[in-house]
Amino acid sequence: MAELKNFQELRSMVLKRPRKIVAVSCANDWHTLEAVFKAKSDGLLDYVLIGDKNIIKEICREKHQNFPEGDIIHCTDEKKSAEITVSLVREGKADFLQKGLMQTRTILKAVLDKKTGIGTGNLMSNVALLEIPGYHKLVGVTDGGMIIYPTFEQKVGMIKNAVRMFNYMGYEKPKVAVTCALEIVNPKMQETVDAAKLKEMAENGGIDNCFVEGPISTDIAFSKDAAKVKKFESPVAGDADIILVPNINAGNMMVKGLLLFGHAKMAGVVMGAKCPIALNSRSASFEEKYFALVACCLISDIVG
Amino acid sequence: MAELKNFQELRSMVLKRPRKIVAVSCANDWHTLEAVFKAKSDGLLDYVLIGDKNIIKEICREKHQNFPEGDIIHCTDEKKSAEITVSLVREGKADFLQKGLMQTRTILKAVLDKKTGIGTGNLMSNVALLEIPGYHKLVGVTDGGMIIYPTFEQKVGMIKNAVRMFNYMGYEKPKVAVTCALEIVNPKMQETVDAAKLKEMAENGGIDNCFVEGPISTDIAFSKDAAKVKKFESPVAGDADIILVPNINAGNMMVKGLLLFGHAKMAGVVMGAKCPIALNSRSASFEEKYFALVACCLISDIVG
Repeated sequence: MAELKNFQELRSMVLKRPRKIVAVSCANDWHTLEAVFKAKSDGLLDYVLIGDKNIIKEICREKHQNFPEGDIIHCTDEKKSAEITVSLVREGKADFLQKGLMQTRTILKAVLDKKTGIGTGNLMSNVALLEIPGYHKLVGVTDGGMIIYPTFEQKVGMIKNAVRMFNYMGYEKPKVAVTCALEIVNPKMQETVDAAKLKEMAENGGIDNCFVEGPISTDIAFSKDAAKVKKFESPVAGDADIILVPNINAGNMMVKGLLLFGHAKMAGVVMGAKCPIALNSRSASFEEKYFALVACCLISDIVG
Repeated sequence: MAELKNFQELRSMVLKRPRKIVAVSCANDWHTLEAVFKAKSDGLLDYVLIGDKNIIKEICREKHQNFPEGDIIHCTDEKKSAEITVSLVREGKADFLQKGLMQTRTILKAVLDKKTGIGTGNLMSNVALLEIPGYHKLVGVTDGGMIIYPTFEQKVGMIKNAVRMFNYMGYEKPKVAVTCALEIVNPKMQETVDAAKLKEMAENGGIDNCFVEGPISTDIAFSKDAAKVKKFESPVAGDADIILVPNINAGNMMVKGLLLFGHAKMAGVVMGAKCPIALNSRSASFEEKYFALVACCLISDIVG
């Protein structure tokens, strides 16, 4: 099975495929525009910007960036911008969405609208795709951004979303580590009980196209040496593709630690709708926004 | 206020003080012995080993390490070894404890025994003291090792333990970041509500000798740049000494991520008894065990 070592390899895969079209909601933000412009000039995608035409033009003038005015749909209202963006995907005029300078809940509300949205009825969840120097391949961490205290059923949905993403990245059976502070079941820690149940469920065919291990500690998931010391044998040990974290704080803190001090790079993607959503923190760097676009190009023919 | 940049500076402080004596429970483990021997030859401490004399001698023979036999109290039973170790502190023959090759719960049980133990009635909690390349000083993360789902009262106890540790390291008012996935109060996330209450409690004099900020996200706690982008103003932003994490999984995963990929170094210490306890995972490296000893030397006159 082909594994992707880094974002560069992911980008190379995208370049072999037809260009996608991204619809950008509330595009009036420089880092967002910079990422979209670079992705276009790299030949990865075309775009439609939805946002305040005057602000976008002003930002571009400041940054000495020219682009065709026809690429903008003028809209100064956040809610309306989200609705237009979603409608472009629904009508087949765009392949996926990017969130610009706006509240996450506004774009999600438009996505999930029962009449005009692009929901599938499945759980929506966040996958942080990470390139970590020192780890031999990309890894997806879910969910450090959206689901606060996931129930067992939500954990199943989170795994399915992340697995679908990896399947579309070319992985037949991605390795899922259901991580906890412990690698043994402790009835006082519900996370470890859930982890064992998720593993059993996957073994019995309840979660397809992946290999699930749990409970497993973070060091074992990432390091064969740690697995050896702790005598933990599993194909997932030291070779995880997907890390399911037990709660939003755990995912958030691990990912932020890796970004701050592990020189990791991240692409933030929301899965579960008819198309992926490139969704980063408003304070995210240009690079994060660019990688999110690249990842979404690869996985945006997931459902339609 | 003097801040400690790294373990080297912490070690220099220890060298200026009188030697301490560590009692090592179940010392029959090479990494544990190696750490103790190095700390002794560095002039930091003297030791008493409690454990299986034959195994200890065999390990030392293998590693070509000589030491006076009189330093061992022979004991092959784990529970008994813990009891002897604790009694040495109680009787003033040792300044602090180190856990060797044994279950954490066995040593804690002996420490907390109402008749023969060295408990104080206060909460016992774990502080992982970290040196992280890229961060300008040591930082203590509590609690990624012992307390699974801390209550509000336990969070108060965890802060007090970590603050006491930093006070003894020479910090008058360490900066405590009560971290969450968010830096604003969200009633759906109890952690953020607790964080705001902890800040208020500290401001009203309910937690002494420290400065508490919360809720605060991990990136803001560690990075002034992130604080600037998110317009978060606080003396703790980008300058945290102590990170209070909302649950064991969050602390465990962040710390393991930093150890695996951030080249961080760690000293694991348990606070709350009459002396600190150098307590590392059984799979911890020699270096981790050594740093835990160094840290405990500095803070072991906390109560007695």
